Formats: sequence, structure tokens, C-alpha cells
Amino acid sequence: MPGRADVEAARDLVGPAVRRTPVVEVAGDELGVMGRVVLKLELLQHAGSFKARGAMNNVLSLHEGVEGVAAASGGNHGAAVAWAARRAGLAADVFAPASATPAKLERIEAYGARLHRVDGHVGEALAACQEHSEREGVPVVHPYDTFATVAGAGTLGLELEEQVPDADRVLIACGGGGLYAGVATALAGVVPVQPVEPALCAHLHDALAAGHPVDRPSEGVAADALGPPRIGDHAFALATAQGASSLLVDEDAILPARQWLWDHLRVLAEPAACVPLAAVLSGVVPVAAGETVALVVSGGNNTTLPS
Amino acid sequence: MPGRADVEAARDLVGPAVRRTPVVEVAGDELGVMGRVVLKLELLQHAGSFKARGAMNNVLSLHEGVEGVAAASGGNHGAAVAWAARRAGLAADVFAPASATPAKLERIEAYGARLHRVDGHVGEALAACQEHSEREGVPVVHPYDTFATVAGAGTLGLELEEQVPDADRVLIACGGGGLYAGVATALAGVVPVQPVEPALCAHLHDALAAGHPVDRPSEGVAADALGPPRIGDHAFALATAQGASSLLVDEDAILPARQWLWDHLRVLAEPAACVPLAAVLSGVVPVAAGETVALVVSGGNNTTLPS
Repeated sequence: MPGRADVEAARDLVGPAVRRTPVVEVAGDELGVMGRVVLKLELLQHAGSFKARGAMNNVLSLHEGVEGVAAASGGNHGAAVAWAARRAGLAADVFAPASATPAKLERIEAYGARLHRVDGHVGEALAACQEHSEREGVPVVHPYDTFATVAGAGTLGLELEEQVPDADRVLIACGGGGLYAGVATALAGVVPVQPVEPALCAHLHDALAAGHPVDRPSEGVAADALGPPRIGDHAFALATAQGASSLLVDEDAILPARQWLWDHLRVLAEPAACVPLAAVLSGVVPVAAGETVALVVSGGNNTTLPS
Repeated sequence: MPGRADVEAARDLVGPAVRRTPVVEVAGDELGVMGRVVLKLELLQHAGSFKARGAMNNVLSLHEGVEGVAAASGGNHGAAVAWAARRAGLAADVFAPASATPAKLERIEAYGARLHRVDGHVGEALAACQEHSEREGVPVVHPYDTFATVAGAGTLGLELEEQVPDADRVLIACGGGGLYAGVATALAGVVPVQPVEPALCAHLHDALAAGHPVDRPSEGVAADALGPPRIGDHAFALATAQGASSLLVDEDAILPARQWLWDHLRVLAEPAACVPLAAVLSGVVPVAAGETVALVVSGGNNTTLPS
């Protein structure tokens, strides 16, 4: 498991290749809470999501002589790997499951990756990717559950610490758990990091209940970004070690949070990125008077406007 | 004409009612220039544009006992006045010309203003607004050419000074010139402020050539926000006093800048707000190595995605 020093090393490595995304403060009365809420606008990141951080950390950690990378993803991770590879002058092969949305597939191709459509679920896409990896001798960049990916994602936490030094709590949407694990690693002992999951993608929640990661379905509007087969080992181990629970957000609370971001801030986030704000707006996370909650708006790869 | 002290007084007055919008740095290689470019994301402002600053400064400057305000605008100013009035507990009557777009009219009504559709141009809307003002005894909030509006808009400049202390130049889209006049007032002697106009709305440009404000048509994709009957007296006087020229951006450069913002930053700005970036991307404003240019993305009240 990476520690804070590893996240700091990742920051030194990815450096200015990754964008320092801005934060914006929202007064409590706008949200119907008593305290302050600060949003980190990570949808402004390269390739449209936090995944650029882990992807770039992987790509820049490769041994010399490697000429390409592979990834299994029809979404933000695929786009991020395509972006990072192009920037580093490497080839990228991205294997997308049938469920991938056109918007994200377009993004993957726009960055010059070779896109392989796999007629099946994430499992089949991953198998095809691994087969390619072994045949061609190119490394696979994991979307959330390897040391380099977690440490790279954690660089967001180091920025947040500087940008919101008075945060009392940090809310992170949790799917496979790479961002949660990275930020909770970076901010261990600094500020509590709270994972939040859609009720229909409660992977960490179910794993904590079972005492180990378990397979479960991923459904609902955020499943395209928060729907891994199961919670990552890094995230599970970290949540267990830190005694964290997973807070669940009702499916019906997610799109209203997206609408809120558009109506109040003209920020057009993808549904998965609205899960932490949904937790605030629906009262799952109370924000008391005098309290400051920081949350991450993690991605913006969507192509529809709210009403 | 207001001076910097008046802008500082406006900041003290509007205080936290107005959002401190964030900035994000973009590396030159992304834009095809040698230096740095920093974007101030003013589209995140209340009511979706910088107009909230001037509107709030007007509303909070009213004499006690005033129960309402009026405005002639089918656009960002109308929405901003509706927002500011609601926040201050005042009624708002907004008179919109026939050319107003549905997205902005919806926004005006969403903030609870009484919307009056006027069958005519901006001139007719303004006449109807003034008639209402005299009949009902409520003040008119001018969109760009009064002391309070200019001083309020200038508060953006004070934030920019803190957020980008190393800026070598600031680019501002100029329509009626309220934002330009405000920011150039705030930053006089600090950093040069460069007005930029669409070639089809070259009001300041034509006024400087003629030696006085002149009527001219407003056309093109940015005319709904940068299309006043003529440049404001404040902006004209300030540009003359500071020896500023107006740089013109080709009509065909504006929507590609909007596309760039969406593709690279997942920022969905309205066309008028993309004019300063268009000046950079099209080479009208060179950004030399070692130079830092700050520019304002001034609004986001639009309802269509780029391709």
C-alpha cells in the first residue's frame, strides 16, 4: 500500500503534466446547510476526470523502452490512458465493453488510442486487454487498484490540503476506490476522508459488511463510472485500517445534484461526479454551522445538458 | 467616473453575496503559445455571469424604502438583476426585447422576476422599462454604463489581482464595456487591461476611430451579450484616458474557442465569454515565452453543447 510519501513522489513525477484544478466555495444557504462547502472542480482535469492523475503516474513510471500501454475501460480511465500515452509519445490500446457510452468512446479515439470494442462486460474487456498485453508485451494500466494508480490519484488530496486547509471533512465518490484510497492516503492524519457510494453501486459498503470485497451488481445513473466488478483491495484495506464507513446516496438524489451544479454554478458534471454533492443536498452528510466540507466533482465526460 | 477606491467600496458592500470565482492555469503548449494563460471562470458566478457583481452593487446601494428595481435586458443583465433583487427581498421587473433567447428568459423567470416581453429591439425594451420606472417609482439598473454598475463589475479585477499577481496583461471581452471599464479602473497602474471585441460588434473600436461613441450594428454569435446600441461612456472615456486600443476577433474564431474550452476543460461557456480566448487561439494576442496572460470567461448562460 502506498503512503503519503509515495503520493508526494507521484506529485513530483507527474508535476505540471497534470492540471491543478481549482476550488470554488459555495455558501451554506445556497445548499440549505449551515456550514461551508468547497468544491474541487476536478472535471477540469485533462481528459475530463481525475483518472488523468493515475494514468500519468503509471505512464511516467514505465521502464525505458516500453512503447505502449493497454487499458480495459470504455470510460474515463480509457480516455485518461489515451491522453497520458499520447502526451508521453506512447501507443495506447483501449478495450471497451459493450456498455461504454459514445461520448467516452469518442474521447478515447480523439486522443489517438486504438479503440477495441469488446462484445461483453468489463470482465470480457479486461480479458481481451490482458491477452493483448501478453501477446504484445505492453503493460496494462489498472483503473483503480494498483500502487501507481492509487498514488497518482492521491495527488488530488495534496492539492486539496493546500487549497482548503480548514476542511473538516472531505467527501469522495467511491467506485473501484482508487480516488478514495489515494486521497485518504494523502490526507491520513490531516482530515477525515469520507467515501460516498450510490446505493445501487454499494461496493465498499457491501465489502465492509462482508469483511472482504464481494462481487455485486452496479446499476443506476452513475454505474458507468462507479461500477467496478468489486471494490479494490487498496480501498478496502484502507477503509478497514482507518475505520471508515461508506455512506450511501439514494439513486434519486444524484441527478438533482447534477441539476443543482448546472443551475447554480454552470458546471456540467457527469452523474458519478455529483454523488458527494448529492450526499450534502439530501442530508446524508450534514454540514454544521462553522464546519467546512470539501468535496470532489470528479469528472465531466457527458454530452447531455440537464433540463 | 469611479476610481479604484470606489471599486474597493463596492467589494466591501457586495462582500460574500458575490461569488469569488476560481482561476485555472492552462499551459501554453495546450494553446499553441509560448507563455502561460490563466482563465478566470466567471461563468460560475451567481446568475451565470459577471453581471451579478454590478447588479448586486446597484441593489445594495439603493435608498431605504425602495421596494423594487427594473431592468431592460433579455440576457445576462436581466438574470443578474432578478437574482440580486430576490436575494435582497425586492421585486424586479425585467423588460426583454424580442431578440432575447429562451435560455436567458427562463433564467430571469426562475429568479422570480416579472418578465415583460417587448415587441421590438433593445431601444424599445429600454423605453418600456423607463416608462415603468417613472410610473411605479422604481429605479432602473443600467446594464453597463453607470457608476454603480461599473464599480461592481470592477470587483472582478480586485480578485484577479490577488489570484494572478504575476499577470502581464488582462483580456476582457467588451460589449457595452461595463466589465472592461470596471476591471481597467480596478487595475489601473497594476497591469494593462486589454479590451477585445468581436469584429461584428466593434463598438469601442469604432468609437475610438470616430473620437466619440457611435451607433453601429451588433451581429454574430456573441451579439446577445456583446451587442449594446453603442459603447458606454464610461468605457469610452477610460479607454481614451488609458490610451487603450480595441483588438478585434474574427467571427469565425469565437465558436472554436468555445469548443476548445469544452474539449480541454469541460467548461461550457457562452459565445461572448469565449472572445478573449479566441484572441489567444487565433493569434490576435500573442503570448510570449515567460509572459502570463489572464483572461475572463465571463458567462455561461447557454443551453447547447458544442459538437
